[in-house]
Amino acid sequence: MPGEFELIARYFTRPARRAVLGVGDDCALLQTAPGMQLAISTDMLVAGRHFFADVDPYLLGHKCLSVNLSDLAACGARPLAFSLALALPQADEAWLAPFSQGLLALADAHGCELIGGDTTRGPLNICITVFGEVPSDASALPVPTRALLRSGARPGDDVYVSGTLGDAALALRALQGQCTLPPDLMQAARARLETPTPRVALGLALRGIASACADISDGLLGDLGHILERSHCGARVALDKVLPLLATRQAYAGSAAQFDADYGARTALQCVLAGGDDYELVFTAPQAQRSVLDALALRLPLPLTRIATIEAAPGLRLVDARGHTVTQDFASFDHFAVAPGSH
Amino acid sequence: MPGEFELIARYFTRPARRAVLGVGDDCALLQTAPGMQLAISTDMLVAGRHFFADVDPYLLGHKCLSVNLSDLAACGARPLAFSLALALPQADEAWLAPFSQGLLALADAHGCELIGGDTTRGPLNICITVFGEVPSDASALPVPTRALLRSGARPGDDVYVSGTLGDAALALRALQGQCTLPPDLMQAARARLETPTPRVALGLALRGIASACADISDGLLGDLGHILERSHCGARVALDKVLPLLATRQAYAGSAAQFDADYGARTALQCVLAGGDDYELVFTAPQAQRSVLDALALRLPLPLTRIATIEAAPGLRLVDARGHTVTQDFASFDHFAVAPGSH
Repeated sequence: MPGEFELIARYFTRPARRAVLGVGDDCALLQTAPGMQLAISTDMLVAGRHFFADVDPYLLGHKCLSVNLSDLAACGARPLAFSLALALPQADEAWLAPFSQGLLALADAHGCELIGGDTTRGPLNICITVFGEVPSDASALPVPTRALLRSGARPGDDVYVSGTLGDAALALRALQGQCTLPPDLMQAARARLETPTPRVALGLALRGIASACADISDGLLGDLGHILERSHCGARVALDKVLPLLATRQAYAGSAAQFDADYGARTALQCVLAGGDDYELVFTAPQAQRSVLDALALRLPLPLTRIATIEAAPGLRLVDARGHTVTQDFASFDHFAVAPGSH
Repeated sequence: MPGEFELIARYFTRPARRAVLGVGDDCALLQTAPGMQLAISTDMLVAGRHFFADVDPYLLGHKCLSVNLSDLAACGARPLAFSLALALPQADEAWLAPFSQGLLALADAHGCELIGGDTTRGPLNICITVFGEVPSDASALPVPTRALLRSGARPGDDVYVSGTLGDAALALRALQGQCTLPPDLMQAARARLETPTPRVALGLALRGIASACADISDGLLGDLGHILERSHCGARVALDKVLPLLATRQAYAGSAAQFDADYGARTALQCVLAGGDDYELVFTAPQAQRSVLDALALRLPLPLTRIATIEAAPGLRLVDARGHTVTQDFASFDHFAVAPGSH
C-alpha cells in the first residue's frame, strides 16, 4: 500500500497557479490583489450524516467542494483556492482516484486551486476550507467590504430565492425508502442532491444589488432566518410563491395537486421550506432593483423568484394566497438535533 | 439539548478583532496588510489516532491549535486567525466547555482569533485551518516571499533542531503500557505529548537567517527528509549530537547509559529520530549565521542544537561519533502505514 505522502502526491499535488506557494510545504502562501479581502469558509462532511458511505466518490468529490463554493457565492466572493483535509478508513486508490477527479473537475471549472491539506486514517470525514476574494470598501459600515452579508436586509426589501428548492430533500427521502418517485423525476431530483451547482456567478452579479444574502444549505426557513436575525427584522413569506419551487411537484405527471394527493401536501412544504441541501441563494434587495434582477435572471439564466417581503417586526410569518397566516412548525436542519444517518 | 447554532454561539463566538468579519456569516473576511501574504495550513486530528478519545478536553483544545501554529512557525509566519471544524459524537457541554477554553487560551496567547467553522455530529474529528502573515518579497526567487520554505537548504549549511526531541513519543509508549518511566520524568514527558509549545517566536526570528525550515511533527528523519527532498540535497546527521536531545534520557536518575540499559538504546534512537509529536523546528542556515543563532538561543531562550551538515549528495546519512555511517531503518510516522490507535 502506498504511504501517506505518496498518496497525497499522486492525487492532490498540482503546480501552484495563482497561489504564491501550493501543496508541499508547511504552509501554502496566498496573496490577495490590492484592495481585495479574503472570504473564508469551512465545511466538514461526515459519512452517514451528509452523504451515504457508499456514494459514488466522483459525485462526492464534486459535492464537497460545491458546498464550500456555495458559501463563497453567498458572499459574492470569487473562488481562488481551497485546502482539503481528509480522514479515510484506508488508503484506497479505487476511492481516491474518482474522488479527486470529481473534486478537481469542479475546482478547475471555477479556477479554484488546491493549495494544501492533510490526510489521515480515520472514519471517513472530508473538511474543505475555501478561499475567495471580494473587494474591500472603506466606506461601507459597519463592515468595510463589498461582500454580501447576512446583516443588510431592510424593511420593504424583496426576498428572492434562486433556482428550485426541495428536490434534493425529496430525493433523499426516496433513497431512504420513505417514498418512490417516477424514474425520470427521481433522476433529476437525485442530481440536485448529489451534484448541486454552487451559484457563484449569481453571487458575483448580486454585489451592489442585494442588501443581504445567504446560501440555502439547511433549508429555506432556517437560512432566511439567519438573514432576519442578523438584520434585526422579519419577513412575510408567501406560500403560493414558495411551493411551486419544488420542481418535482411541478413536473409531476398528473399535476401539482396530484403530487400533493400522492405524497402529501405536508411533504412538499417540508421539502421546500426545511429540506436542506439546496445550495441555492436566498437574498434581499430593495424594490428599486426589480427590473435589474429580472434582467439578471434572463442573463444567467437562472430563475429568481420573489417569495417574501422584509418587515420591521422580527420573525418569519408564512401566509397563504389570501394573506392569512399559516401556523408552521418546520424545523431547520440541525446537525445535532436529528438522528444520525438521516441527512 | 441545545441545538447546533446555540452551541456554536455559546462556546465559539467572539467579536472579530483583527478580522474584517468573524463567526456568524457564510464566510469570514480577512484582509492582509499591504505587502503581506497569507500563510495557510490545515491539520485534521482524529480520536484514537492523534489522541486518546478520553484525553482531557482542555489539553486537547491546546494541542489541536498547537499543531497548526507549529506549521505557521515553520514558515516564519505571524498567527492571525483560524477556523475550526468539529465532528462530535454528541453535543456534550462537559466536553465543549473545557475544549474551547484550552483552544482559546492558546489562541489568545498568540493573538490568533477564531473567525469561523462548522460543527456536525460524527466520530470525534477536529480540523483546524490556521492563517498567518509573512512579508512578500518580489526579489526572492523562485517564490516571491520572505516565508521560510523547505526548499532553500544549500550544501555547507548547518542543520539545527530547536528544544528537545523524542520525549512525547516516549510518553506515548508509556501510556500504551510498553514501558514505565519514573514519575517525575513521566510527568515532564507527558507534558511534551499533551501540551506542545509551538515555536512561533523562533520561526519569526529565523526569517532572513534560516535557509530552510520545517516543523517536526512526524519525526526528525521524516521532516528533515522533506527539507532535503525539496532542496535537492542531502545531510550527514551526527548521532552523538542527536541522542542527547531526548531530555528524559539525559535526566534519567542513573545516567544516559543506564537509560539505554533499562529501555534499550534502540528505543532512545527511535524516539529521537522518528518519534513524532515533537513540534520543534528543524532548520538550515549558512555557517556564517552561527554566532547570530547562538545569540538567538540565549535570547529566546531555547536550545538550538547543530546536528548535521547539508551535502550536495541526496539522502540522509547517520554517522556515529567517529564519523562511521550507521545503517538506519527508522520509518517516519505515516498516518496510513501504522495501525490505528498507535499514535
